[in-house]
Amino acid sequence: MQSPYLIFLGDANLTGMDKMGAGIRQWRGELCLAQHRLPGCAFDLDLPEMAPAQAQAAGCRTMIVGVVNVGGFIPENWIATIVDALESGLDVAAGMHTRLIDIPAIAEAAARTGRSVHDVRAPTRSFAPGTGRKRSGKRVLTMGTDCAVGKKYTALAIERELRARGVDADFRATGQTGLLIAGRGVVIDAVIADFVSGAAEWLSPDADPAHWDVIEGQGSLAHPAYAAVTLGLAHGSQPDAIVLCHEPGRAKMLGLDYPVPTVSALAEMALQATRLTNPAAQVVGVSINGSNLDRGSIDAVIAGIEAETGLPCCDPLLHGPGRIVDRLLG
Amino acid sequence: MQSPYLIFLGDANLTGMDKMGAGIRQWRGELCLAQHRLPGCAFDLDLPEMAPAQAQAAGCRTMIVGVVNVGGFIPENWIATIVDALESGLDVAAGMHTRLIDIPAIAEAAARTGRSVHDVRAPTRSFAPGTGRKRSGKRVLTMGTDCAVGKKYTALAIERELRARGVDADFRATGQTGLLIAGRGVVIDAVIADFVSGAAEWLSPDADPAHWDVIEGQGSLAHPAYAAVTLGLAHGSQPDAIVLCHEPGRAKMLGLDYPVPTVSALAEMALQATRLTNPAAQVVGVSINGSNLDRGSIDAVIAGIEAETGLPCCDPLLHGPGRIVDRLLG
Repeated sequence: MQSPYLIFLGDANLTGMDKMGAGIRQWRGELCLAQHRLPGCAFDLDLPEMAPAQAQAAGCRTMIVGVVNVGGFIPENWIATIVDALESGLDVAAGMHTRLIDIPAIAEAAARTGRSVHDVRAPTRSFAPGTGRKRSGKRVLTMGTDCAVGKKYTALAIERELRARGVDADFRATGQTGLLIAGRGVVIDAVIADFVSGAAEWLSPDADPAHWDVIEGQGSLAHPAYAAVTLGLAHGSQPDAIVLCHEPGRAKMLGLDYPVPTVSALAEMALQATRLTNPAAQVVGVSINGSNLDRGSIDAVIAGIEAETGLPCCDPLLHGPGRIVDRLLG
Repeated sequence: MQSPYLIFLGDANLTGMDKMGAGIRQWRGELCLAQHRLPGCAFDLDLPEMAPAQAQAAGCRTMIVGVVNVGGFIPENWIATIVDALESGLDVAAGMHTRLIDIPAIAEAAARTGRSVHDVRAPTRSFAPGTGRKRSGKRVLTMGTDCAVGKKYTALAIERELRARGVDADFRATGQTGLLIAGRGVVIDAVIADFVSGAAEWLSPDADPAHWDVIEGQGSLAHPAYAAVTLGLAHGSQPDAIVLCHEPGRAKMLGLDYPVPTVSALAEMALQATRLTNPAAQVVGVSINGSNLDRGSIDAVIAGIEAETGLPCCDPLLHGPGRIVDRLLG
């Protein structure tokens, strides 16, 4: 996929919908040249605003649809913009379940212009069912009280911290954004259900005993739509260590009338889930996403979680994940 | 799909591999005219042995590949028999993940002979993600200590018993065999992982308050390969009642070096899993598969399970599920 990128945010306006664009902006900011939004868009990635033709003239090579939505589909009113991007000389990438190439107007425009479309969520290979066989090497998995609470950011921050300390570590992407950031991985929620744990086993193969795979979690064990993906990923990952991820102040699961579990309740669920394939699994820390809190509130939340759980707690973007990594390696 | 059927068992020889053929034989025996086996096959459905041409002459219309295997693929050495069936004037149906139509020699033979191939596992529609919204009507779900322990037979026996008592009830198929028996359903392990609970919600829609959906369970919460499917099905089913299914004497999960949980341990796991979307879920009985036990052993096992769990326990093919249905309706 050719960079630099134009990030397209459509008219996305619900909490968390910008997380693909925001993730690429945060972790591959050097590849992001501009953003393009439609009227009604509630997000801003702090990039210059450019239409596709202008972005192409400025050097962009690919427009990334930087939005996630429930069901993973391309809204009808974005198709014209995607066709415009292809006609302006840009490739287009998206991470939806509905593939760009399956939308006739887009497929036709791609063929006519000779541009490429990248459907990064669709698996590019098949997988075997899981076996539960114990693999060598060490693994840490991030698990969330909900979707969009910081599981990917936490895993990326831990990979960076481990490498800074000279530890051999690899971030293992399990979502479309993580895959674009890392350049490899498997979008685990797009795998056929029977093969979820098998795909997770494939993702973090046997490794040197001192090597850490830092596996991006997905969904939440407490989420009525996505817990199956979360459980299959946990079973296949066989994590030695779990880092819990939480957004303080969020009362309801994203888009649903279900309560968000407490960190302690999630810790219990996470251990029950992971112990099937790794009885030695332990929770080593709590990562919070304090982006909606002021600094004083963050400090109070962290003190409360540490008192309640006895685990190191931090906001990885604010404090770095050092204290969690101390516990991980300790 | 045209009946009557020739059931093809290939050279299947591992425990449980015959369960698709055996299930159709048990529950739609009137549609089964003959069986066809290759050297090395360990199973016998007690049907006349016929090659495809002979079966066609005897009136068969469709050859069903009556085998399940890990990964759901068509072994190379079965392709010639499938092509032979098409050339003999039979349609062919299979329930593998690998579709018949994607195997070039089979697709070519189907096109050349004008016969149909039915890939019954592949979803014929798309699904939305689950919402967790409470639906009207009542639901009972069978959940197993392992794969191939009698979840489908138990659900079918409960449907029959409920209808015999004048209760409005529907078996809801979630596997390829159940789908062929019922003529409808969704093969839940072949759905994209993100949509498993949504597909389960679709399968048992809002219904009359007195109506029972009897939902066929899949896999096991204790199975390292398939627990994700089991959990998503449980969340989407929102069962009011759970019937546990168990094969006494099986020490290891099918094909794996993992222990089979006790019935009591599974009861605890099942309640934890189902209470997310239905806090009122209750375990109402235990169904055992006593096909490998003598009658005295079965009685002793049942007495032991009833003493341990306080739940009614029976082998539905031996005793009928009446005592479980008493508890269900009580």
